Amino acid sequence: MEKIDGGLSNVPGFKSSGIHCGIKKNGKSDLALIFSEVSAAVAGVFTMNKIKAAPVVLNMAKLKKGQGRAIIINSGNANACTGIQGIKDAEIIVETVSAKLNISQESTFIASTGIIGKPLPIEKILPNIPALVDNLSRNGGGEAAEAIMTTDTFLKEIAVREYIDGKPVTMAGIAKGAGMIHPDMATMLSFIITDINIKHHSLQKALKSSIEKSFNMITIDGDTSTNDTVLILANGRAGNKEIECGTPEFSKIQTMLDFVTQSLAKMIIQDGEGATKFVEIKVRGARHFKEAKKIAFAIANSCLVKTAFFGENPNWGRIMAAIGSTGIEIEEVKVAIFFDDLKIVKGGISLKQFETPILDILRKDSFTVTIDLGLGGEEAIVWTTDLSCEYVEINAHYDT
Amino acid sequence: MEKIDGGLSNVPGFKSSGIHCGIKKNGKSDLALIFSEVSAAVAGVFTMNKIKAAPVVLNMAKLKKGQGRAIIINSGNANACTGIQGIKDAEIIVETVSAKLNISQESTFIASTGIIGKPLPIEKILPNIPALVDNLSRNGGGEAAEAIMTTDTFLKEIAVREYIDGKPVTMAGIAKGAGMIHPDMATMLSFIITDINIKHHSLQKALKSSIEKSFNMITIDGDTSTNDTVLILANGRAGNKEIECGTPEFSKIQTMLDFVTQSLAKMIIQDGEGATKFVEIKVRGARHFKEAKKIAFAIANSCLVKTAFFGENPNWGRIMAAIGSTGIEIEEVKVAIFFDDLKIVKGGISLKQFETPILDILRKDSFTVTIDLGLGGEEAIVWTTDLSCEYVEINAHYDT
Repeated sequence: MEKIDGGLSNVPGFKSSGIHCGIKKNGKSDLALIFSEVSAAVAGVFTMNKIKAAPVVLNMAKLKKGQGRAIIINSGNANACTGIQGIKDAEIIVETVSAKLNISQESTFIASTGIIGKPLPIEKILPNIPALVDNLSRNGGGEAAEAIMTTDTFLKEIAVREYIDGKPVTMAGIAKGAGMIHPDMATMLSFIITDINIKHHSLQKALKSSIEKSFNMITIDGDTSTNDTVLILANGRAGNKEIECGTPEFSKIQTMLDFVTQSLAKMIIQDGEGATKFVEIKVRGARHFKEAKKIAFAIANSCLVKTAFFGENPNWGRIMAAIGSTGIEIEEVKVAIFFDDLKIVKGGISLKQFETPILDILRKDSFTVTIDLGLGGEEAIVWTTDLSCEYVEINAHYDT
Repeated sequence: MEKIDGGLSNVPGFKSSGIHCGIKKNGKSDLALIFSEVSAAVAGVFTMNKIKAAPVVLNMAKLKKGQGRAIIINSGNANACTGIQGIKDAEIIVETVSAKLNISQESTFIASTGIIGKPLPIEKILPNIPALVDNLSRNGGGEAAEAIMTTDTFLKEIAVREYIDGKPVTMAGIAKGAGMIHPDMATMLSFIITDINIKHHSLQKALKSSIEKSFNMITIDGDTSTNDTVLILANGRAGNKEIECGTPEFSKIQTMLDFVTQSLAKMIIQDGEGATKFVEIKVRGARHFKEAKKIAFAIANSCLVKTAFFGENPNWGRIMAAIGSTGIEIEEVKVAIFFDDLKIVKGGISLKQFETPILDILRKDSFTVTIDLGLGGEEAIVWTTDLSCEYVEINAHYDT
């Protein structure tokens, strides 16, 4: 498997576009379309939030058919907490796009991101759908990636190539963050396309597995969105023999998908609202994966730990307090803590000689905090950010 | 029951003191002592964090005897994550104070608050114990309240008087916050004294009940401390007939204690680190109290909701997202949201006409957000703050 430059435009048999329809007041693009020239297997994973946005409700119903052709995405408005009107608005958009593309409504998916609780301005979206469709291009991947951004400060795209049955297969993905990032899942949208020939069920299985190791292991602020959506379309253009679960070819696909989702997940964290640090929290020596994950998230979501990262402050006591706050039975005297490779806590208490080198680590843009519980062989890795003044400023005033 | 001015100094049969021993670098007082002239019934509640500070471990063992005379408290260092040495340090302090007061070590309790993970500087504490004891005074309540403060910006004390068997009984309490405030419990210390004649077991029962409605219903940042301690001493000096559970007199005591603990809990929130708003989150119409409480805390701990409060931003969609994130089954179309008495969401969607009046409410220092789930008759009330830039600044650099 090799990483290749660019994003969606690498994948044969797909076209994309992105335009400005007027939802965003700043003139930036806010409407994207991804289109497969032939029917594609589709798989998806959606927010676990009990309050689900209208587009999520629609997609969940459609997913059962397992086939898709198009995804239309708007940014600037989440179409969440908008009641029956929100569902109707999403439906009319799907209807309009499907008619213009001359495909069935069942094969058109939809996603929205932005402010919650305000009616979706369909009067801005509908008249621009013809232009959006006319703009579709094999080179439109970058435009689509740009049009799904909200408070993101950089465009998130990734692409990889592999050989299956001697044929090149390509997979590419885009994503947007950037606040309200928490597992199950982040306020994030991600759309992945590939020319691999694979059945819907196998694709769904691979996607679910990948998400457990990527988008479900990141957190910025512990908040869970109403709109989280990951969709993948596989159009079979590569001409490989249809891939079944449990085969070596399936493993290759899983590796590709893991790489794509983890790369996008890390980009979302790197671009966390106001973030100045990318921190990997690794909890090892746990009895169970679930316990390791719970402790890693307790650390990653602690406001006190995160503000200490922001202040480049080696306040490891807050990490200990976060570990203890989970209610999981641990043995304080067995706990070790490392910043990168530097051991700063052994047997639950501070090692003295670390003072200077730890500051060099904390000053870096990116570092790893490892907690060894000394209880077993399981581990979990979570990616997170610090909590900065800028995060507060962005979220105090964000309402568009 | 009437509220009276001042704090601990109101209660007959108790003396207090507070001095500077040198743990705090800024010259402020950092060592406090509360002393009952006669043996008192004692009750206590401690942090649920699995990582417990040395003084908490010591107190939990002592509490079983049910009798106490003295509480020594230092601020500036939590004596947490300090291993065996931390336990030894706490023991030698208890030994020294007990000898000087000429009381048994079993009747001396201890508490610490401040930075975690640094050795307790007993070389500063021990030589100052004679001065601390010599300084004990019936009017020393204010000095003790001052000496337990860390990042608190104001002194927290409260006192009430009631009549039982025709005799005046008095109860007073002090507390310190101010970050890492979360139920089970806050980083908070609170010490309550009373001259009521009551058995240890009845006192413990009353205290536990009060804490459920006060210190366990507040949150600033969702972090749980290693040191949380609430202790109450009741020395019987009022001369009332010993109070038993289930009597009208017990109800009177419960009311006094509820008022004292709720007053102190609210002061802690009012003084939350960097807080600019005091917000009451009331979740009503729930099927169960537990569900109401879980939803109220999800809202109160959401960074996005809290930054919106800071920005005086009516972003009610974040409240909806927080409700849904709990995993509790709700019906979106039944949810109503009020800011004070102003209804802004009905049937899960926005009411239009609120724009101007809501800003008047959000600009206030203190307001109530009520969520009606429309599912049942249970409710829970949680007190919290906004999340400000100043919170981040304080916690980025706090290490003393």
